[in-house]
Amino acid sequence: MAPAAVSDGQPAAAKKSSRFDPMFTQHVIDTMGPNITPRNRQLLTSLLRHLHDFAREVELTNDEWMTGVHFINAVGQTSTKTRNEAHRVSDILGLESLVDEIANKIVAEGDVDPTSSSILGPFWSPNAPFRENGASIIQDPAPGGRVCKMHGTITDLLTGKPIPGAVFDIWQASANGKYDFQDPEAQTPNNLRGKFRADENGQYWFYCYHPTAYSLPTDGPSYDLLTLMDRHPMRPAHIHIMVTHPDFKGCTTQLYPKDDPWLATDTVFAVKDDLVVDFKPLEGDSQAELDLEYNVILSPKGYKGKQFGP
Amino acid sequence: MAPAAVSDGQPAAAKKSSRFDPMFTQHVIDTMGPNITPRNRQLLTSLLRHLHDFAREVELTNDEWMTGVHFINAVGQTSTKTRNEAHRVSDILGLESLVDEIANKIVAEGDVDPTSSSILGPFWSPNAPFRENGASIIQDPAPGGRVCKMHGTITDLLTGKPIPGAVFDIWQASANGKYDFQDPEAQTPNNLRGKFRADENGQYWFYCYHPTAYSLPTDGPSYDLLTLMDRHPMRPAHIHIMVTHPDFKGCTTQLYPKDDPWLATDTVFAVKDDLVVDFKPLEGDSQAELDLEYNVILSPKGYKGKQFGP
Repeated sequence: MAPAAVSDGQPAAAKKSSRFDPMFTQHVIDTMGPNITPRNRQLLTSLLRHLHDFAREVELTNDEWMTGVHFINAVGQTSTKTRNEAHRVSDILGLESLVDEIANKIVAEGDVDPTSSSILGPFWSPNAPFRENGASIIQDPAPGGRVCKMHGTITDLLTGKPIPGAVFDIWQASANGKYDFQDPEAQTPNNLRGKFRADENGQYWFYCYHPTAYSLPTDGPSYDLLTLMDRHPMRPAHIHIMVTHPDFKGCTTQLYPKDDPWLATDTVFAVKDDLVVDFKPLEGDSQAELDLEYNVILSPKGYKGKQFGP
Repeated sequence: MAPAAVSDGQPAAAKKSSRFDPMFTQHVIDTMGPNITPRNRQLLTSLLRHLHDFAREVELTNDEWMTGVHFINAVGQTSTKTRNEAHRVSDILGLESLVDEIANKIVAEGDVDPTSSSILGPFWSPNAPFRENGASIIQDPAPGGRVCKMHGTITDLLTGKPIPGAVFDIWQASANGKYDFQDPEAQTPNNLRGKFRADENGQYWFYCYHPTAYSLPTDGPSYDLLTLMDRHPMRPAHIHIMVTHPDFKGCTTQLYPKDDPWLATDTVFAVKDDLVVDFKPLEGDSQAELDLEYNVILSPKGYKGKQFGP
């Protein structure tokens, strides 16, 4: 803290009104100089307040602090060009999902909200090919894969009208829980990826797999943290989609089967109510055994939705 | 979040009362299982609340979050067996000083408080030799070093009486700002270290150097963070002391010259009012040009001091 007076070991006469120095956190904040950007000052001020409040609230011990220090060093040391452990730790603490909500959540002024966003994850590819409506994204059939006809309509939040030409980009893991990137021996590039352009009625349709649940890696500091918290490393089965159109705010999200056992405890907390879907038995289609209808609602670019104070 | 119902893309009829899901943070907390320890549940619950509140308060963007992810990975990757970057980052955020205050701060019921503690730092040695009162800890004289006679009395907080036999352990950097560990070519082991036993009047006395200010390393993520915050990397000049006796709560702390330019902005926030001291000119002692009196007050083991409500 900023010292007020010289001492030869004798304390000030006035007694403090709490055990901890009430000026400490503000003093740390006030050492930031005039050349920090206003946004970084806002970020660091809030971060310092929460960090210090956390430590005081739990009366963090020296050993606990040092455990945290070692954990952060281990996180960085586990990361490689193909493994981002700090990203994974922030996911299992819910931070990526929260940042996604902050960036994308729009509550409409009317009764209907736009489709919820969810986290992008590390497996989207900018190189997925355009395919014709009615095509299949299954290039490499996999044992146990259950083929599904997926279809729906993409509509405008404000008018309810279809959005012809909207692009529906889908990617998913195969029946073994792996994406093409992770499984080059069994999957060709762009297996289970594709872009579809909505027709004049705003409709898309294609064949894909019913998705498969998978586990995050069960080694490293992120798994140690899950173990300490007595949590599992499972993500529920999901299909990734990214729906875009030049006149609308794009929607990147994930869809989850309603009967997946990991829905309520998704280890990265990416499930939202309107993203839980019902795969139904499909009759009379020789290509597929399941049917999934999913309709997407986009808000026009610049639409802010309901405003919340202050 | 825990999904409440299946959707085909249509939102629930009820509108939420804020833009962000009010149940999200509690849901993340509630995924912790029954086998987490009570203390870890308390720590993680508080950590999750503060982490999420921080993100919502500043409306953390995706790019800012990813900057933080890269920063944490870089911190771990900069750490080695002899450099603990996460420790240093927590120091420049004030966390080690705060943890020290939480562990050690006692506010007395009377008018006089025990001597304030401060952080241990990385340079204490368990191997410092006992030396006789009146000896010097300067084994290797250094250019520019100003010799000081340091002395004082160690007393009991409750009785005000001296504590004979208390051990006064001192360590300090040399005039070049380096400790013996860091400077093996110019300093022999235990240069500027020593333990002194208080005499029957609770008094200690010896010769040391007026301390020298020094900079934290000016590379790595911790320095990047200081630069972003427009802060300097300087620690004020200081003398480390650790005062112990079997019947008293030990005091590990640091003493600072009152005229040091970095007192108010110490980059690790370890300065407290009663630790700021006045070096005076010394006449008539051929061994030293400066005099420093510092009296230490210890509280008996088990003494709790003034209690503050929850």
